[in-house]
Amino acid sequence: MESLIPFFNPRSIALIGVSTRTGLQAFNILDQVLAGGYQGRIYPVNPRGGTISGLQVYRSVGEIPETPDLAVISTPRTAVPDVVRECAARGIKAIIIITQGFADADEWGRQKQQELLEIIRDTGTRIVGPNTIGVINLYENLNTSFIGFLRQKADTAVICQSGIFLLGAPDFTAGIGLGVDIGNAADVGFTECLAYLGQEPRVKVINLHMEGIKDGLQFTEVARRVTRVKPVLCLKTGYSEAGARAASSHSGSLAGEDHVFSAAFKKCGLMRVRDVEEMYYLNKTFLTYSSMPGRRIAMVTISGGAGIMAVDACSSHGLELAEFSEKTRQKLAALFPTWMEVNNPADIWPAGMARGYLDVLEASLDAILDDPGVDAVLVNSPAYLEPGEDPRMDISSTINKMASRYPEKPVALWIFGAYRPELAARLEKENRVVVYPSPERAMSSLAALYRYLHEIKNRDPLHPPFFSDFQEERIEAILERAAREGLKNLNETALEILAACGIPVLPSAVAQNVEEAVKIAESMGYPVVMKIVSPQISHKSDVGGVRINLNGVRAVKEAWDEIMESVSARLPSATIKGVLIQPYRPAGVEVLLGCKRDPSFGPVLVFGLGGIYTELFRDVSFALAPLNREEALDMIRETRVFRLLQGYRGRPPADTGTLVECLLRLSQLVTLRSEIMEIDINPLLAGPQGAVAVDARIALE
Amino acid sequence: MESLIPFFNPRSIALIGVSTRTGLQAFNILDQVLAGGYQGRIYPVNPRGGTISGLQVYRSVGEIPETPDLAVISTPRTAVPDVVRECAARGIKAIIIITQGFADADEWGRQKQQELLEIIRDTGTRIVGPNTIGVINLYENLNTSFIGFLRQKADTAVICQSGIFLLGAPDFTAGIGLGVDIGNAADVGFTECLAYLGQEPRVKVINLHMEGIKDGLQFTEVARRVTRVKPVLCLKTGYSEAGARAASSHSGSLAGEDHVFSAAFKKCGLMRVRDVEEMYYLNKTFLTYSSMPGRRIAMVTISGGAGIMAVDACSSHGLELAEFSEKTRQKLAALFPTWMEVNNPADIWPAGMARGYLDVLEASLDAILDDPGVDAVLVNSPAYLEPGEDPRMDISSTINKMASRYPEKPVALWIFGAYRPELAARLEKENRVVVYPSPERAMSSLAALYRYLHEIKNRDPLHPPFFSDFQEERIEAILERAAREGLKNLNETALEILAACGIPVLPSAVAQNVEEAVKIAESMGYPVVMKIVSPQISHKSDVGGVRINLNGVRAVKEAWDEIMESVSARLPSATIKGVLIQPYRPAGVEVLLGCKRDPSFGPVLVFGLGGIYTELFRDVSFALAPLNREEALDMIRETRVFRLLQGYRGRPPADTGTLVECLLRLSQLVTLRSEIMEIDINPLLAGPQGAVAVDARIALE
Repeated sequence: MESLIPFFNPRSIALIGVSTRTGLQAFNILDQVLAGGYQGRIYPVNPRGGTISGLQVYRSVGEIPETPDLAVISTPRTAVPDVVRECAARGIKAIIIITQGFADADEWGRQKQQELLEIIRDTGTRIVGPNTIGVINLYENLNTSFIGFLRQKADTAVICQSGIFLLGAPDFTAGIGLGVDIGNAADVGFTECLAYLGQEPRVKVINLHMEGIKDGLQFTEVARRVTRVKPVLCLKTGYSEAGARAASSHSGSLAGEDHVFSAAFKKCGLMRVRDVEEMYYLNKTFLTYSSMPGRRIAMVTISGGAGIMAVDACSSHGLELAEFSEKTRQKLAALFPTWMEVNNPADIWPAGMARGYLDVLEASLDAILDDPGVDAVLVNSPAYLEPGEDPRMDISSTINKMASRYPEKPVALWIFGAYRPELAARLEKENRVVVYPSPERAMSSLAALYRYLHEIKNRDPLHPPFFSDFQEERIEAILERAAREGLKNLNETALEILAACGIPVLPSAVAQNVEEAVKIAESMGYPVVMKIVSPQISHKSDVGGVRINLNGVRAVKEAWDEIMESVSARLPSATIKGVLIQPYRPAGVEVLLGCKRDPSFGPVLVFGLGGIYTELFRDVSFALAPLNREEALDMIRETRVFRLLQGYRGRPPADTGTLVECLLRLSQLVTLRSEIMEIDINPLLAGPQGAVAVDARIALE
Repeated sequence: MESLIPFFNPRSIALIGVSTRTGLQAFNILDQVLAGGYQGRIYPVNPRGGTISGLQVYRSVGEIPETPDLAVISTPRTAVPDVVRECAARGIKAIIIITQGFADADEWGRQKQQELLEIIRDTGTRIVGPNTIGVINLYENLNTSFIGFLRQKADTAVICQSGIFLLGAPDFTAGIGLGVDIGNAADVGFTECLAYLGQEPRVKVINLHMEGIKDGLQFTEVARRVTRVKPVLCLKTGYSEAGARAASSHSGSLAGEDHVFSAAFKKCGLMRVRDVEEMYYLNKTFLTYSSMPGRRIAMVTISGGAGIMAVDACSSHGLELAEFSEKTRQKLAALFPTWMEVNNPADIWPAGMARGYLDVLEASLDAILDDPGVDAVLVNSPAYLEPGEDPRMDISSTINKMASRYPEKPVALWIFGAYRPELAARLEKENRVVVYPSPERAMSSLAALYRYLHEIKNRDPLHPPFFSDFQEERIEAILERAAREGLKNLNETALEILAACGIPVLPSAVAQNVEEAVKIAESMGYPVVMKIVSPQISHKSDVGGVRINLNGVRAVKEAWDEIMESVSARLPSATIKGVLIQPYRPAGVEVLLGCKRDPSFGPVLVFGLGGIYTELFRDVSFALAPLNREEALDMIRETRVFRLLQGYRGRPPADTGTLVECLLRLSQLVTLRSEIMEIDINPLLAGPQGAVAVDARIALE
């Protein structure tokens, strides 16, 4: 993390490749560094020498009289490798490469980006970029961009892969304190920057704009630590297929599967935002409010219709409508006309018209905020009149007075009308309240605040359980044999591996001929099930390869013939390895458990509806390994099949405890055995007495 | 519709109950009427007489020297009925009741609201309200509200149930031309106002804020006509359970079921908006753009990262990424650095830095808009510098020049940075382009524009087919018998009714004893299915009341005993009416067809996944009767079960033609027979050779 200090807090900067053209149309970095008021030492470097904007220009890095903390390179792309070499030789530890045309461009660029890493290897020198506008530190009046912008300081930080998030900070993150555009992220990436900004005390909110990430596992670990201390928001772009393709050509990132990012962000408490509008309001929310005791929301409205909109928004974002106490009701009833019912939302307009709008607003808010059953308030009010024109409609002092009297409860505003900007500025001047453009925006922001404070902040570290009863030698033996035989897919032996992990599996044996089938069936006891075994057949029932509920010798013999006939008729080319015999169990709920290894984030577990409808309904949830008990239970709860498991339409509830344990054991297996790329248990039958894996498939590296 | 003219265009107004207090804190309607600059004759009415704001005050309606076109009543609620009586007696045809405290309040209020309707009955007098701020007509400088606000004129109209939509029009609908707050909608409601505004040539977009509606069927008919001519947006509030409760206490509306509103809005081409932010941008969109040839979108970006965000938004709103023609590619390649790939999004920043930003922007836009494969363009650009400060970054003239050169293709803007408001104002000055705050907002707006222009505007009237082969006498006979017997629920006879409508049903007969069962089974041919018949049992399989695949006399006899045993063990109190016998068919796809009559919108048809998973997955679609062929097909396509029907996992595709016909016949049945409140066909088995209804239930009035 120390290696990032010179990027964010350099005492001196070399600007290499700085243009001699300055002024409005020059896009000259030196202009911006000077205009910002940076107080460190600045060394422009350009082979022509001379002076630019009154500063002496050095012809090369070697000529600079000291070793600068940071070098910012904006030469043409062909010159970059040599300049980096010079910088490293000079002992410069931090280099920003502004220049585009590397992994973001063509084959030449991809090779040269690799070469840059070779150059700095073992030198202790670090690179931000290429294809970046560098860093911004408004606490030190520093920015390395080539374009002018309004420097609106706020205690937010940004780590992005596009400069617009630094330059557009007033619009996207309500201002900025510290920021870095990691560009192609050839060297310095999200993980280190996040760790750095996580421990920076001035930063209250961290924002990520992410196109892709290579070190997902380390990132998740760091992010889990940082989110315990401060909120981290993430705009993950390239979530659509077309967007992912565009991302790969922009910063050379591989976007990966979107559900994996969602699972990763969930695991580490990172809050995903959908767009820049949401990002902006969440930054304002976290910069302003630091407490919210619960999720019960009161509304003070000037219109019944607006109140309904607020109630809709409240419900749809998982917040609750506060119930006023008897005391609060009495206080409000004393203000309201007698014909008006006192309710949440509290419609203060009729009372306000009769008794003075500001007085009624203050008295209502005071009563409501004092109510222990209220955790936050949304006030809607008009901004129709020029605030100076009618003192009764300028609610800013009333609101701020109440907000400062009840600092532990957010007072949120939704105002509307043509003078919104002016009134909003007055309301927000003391940084006590946030003005939102709609009740939806207000409620979604309060919901995020609640979620952060109560579900993410200060939460316990992960404690994945460890099962010591794994038969590791048996697992080892099966996987070794598979490796020796060059097998990539385990079908029948997959169940053996699961059994060795302590996951209950249905007993099974493969018969090579009808006599063996009868013998196995007799030893298992009737009824039995028979399934074709063939490397070419994965959907066995689709080719008539499955017979169930077989009740005796004759049924087993008939089933054998039928299966062979049907399979050879429909798939004559299939190699038949035999027929699998299992005891027939009355159907429990068919669920699916599985895992797929992501190149960046490692094993991703899946749980959901099993059987033939799996693909149709995609009723599945994902989570990154290693799981703890709560995460496993969450995975189950997030699916609709959970309702089936709870005892749908009068059936007895299934034993979810066993399912949780199956998920945890699966998680331990894939964490231990990195050669397992994919596991698919489908179906696993979940019933009141437990669960049992019926069919499974494992794909190896 | 003529009766609405005096509301929107009165030549004279009586203001009844106007206060003698005027000025800033008085909330005096007369102040607002005068401040607005209304040119008609104004008659203040107050028993005290005298003058207010220089106008003579009349002591009663009778004293006014002419019959005014419009009366606006703001007396206390107890005085309202008498005043309305006076107005009607005086021959005033249009009355606005501002006063609150009617159906929006208590029992007294609900009764008095009813009384008001009695008073005007047969007088030709119409009422808007109570509980309203009345009307606004900025073409005539008229508004009847008691609060001052900025009068921002735009060619939009508003019909609302809360005054904030008139007063907050600059924020919600980008200004307003004509508007009416129908309040409790005791008399004048959405339907008439929509018809009126639909034929008003100055209005380009109509906005509805709806809490509930009583005459859903008539409304749908009118809305279908109006949406063929101009876009109608609807913010339906009270969509959450809590919101619906709040709506019922606000305007006395019964909110109804939300999916019924969605189905109704879809049927009539009304575009539902989720919140006021969306409403605002759609108004701007429809006020600005009137053409968009297709859905292929090009993007011009100053940042690869911003381009990716635009691509994500484009995909997620159902738009397509335009493919540039070879000619366009060549034009762009000539501008771009050699290492840059030419692609959509077109990243013009590197070229702009080298060759001048505005020149490159203009040349790129010209090339792209000229491409016949491009239907609209989104441009993103920074608003970092004070626009006056750097002429190269003020894109407003370039953009407007290109927008006017290609008027048939929308040029949409996403700009960011601290000077966004200033640059946006310059860009939008000529009303050629809209500036959006995010790519999501831009794409969702363009998607709505496309949808309106290509899927709603000018579309053909509904042509529900008529099947002349209905056995109407048979249906009549069954329903009459049920009425005679006082039956509310038809179970076994439901299939008979469906058969009489030409819907294929599985033959079935009810056996009273085991001998009858055998006889029926023998005549149907084996295998058969047996199901318990009992008014107390709706989920037959849950009580062991179903046996399938019975292959002979012995199986039928055993099944009879098992069913009786199981049912009497689990539900000893059930009255057994016999056992239903049907031929056993191999399972097709189990779908559900049904209908439920909504008190406001009439019969609502439903289609979806049948069988035991119906409730779990809620994979259903809804549509209002009467259906045409396309709507019926849409219903099927909207569900996931459609994928099953198309031939899931290698199964032969089902005959969707028959399903469409079943839906159409069902639609005709519920349109003909208004005593049918609910029909539930579940399952209907859909296979490659057709479909057959297996089980059905009809609920009568």
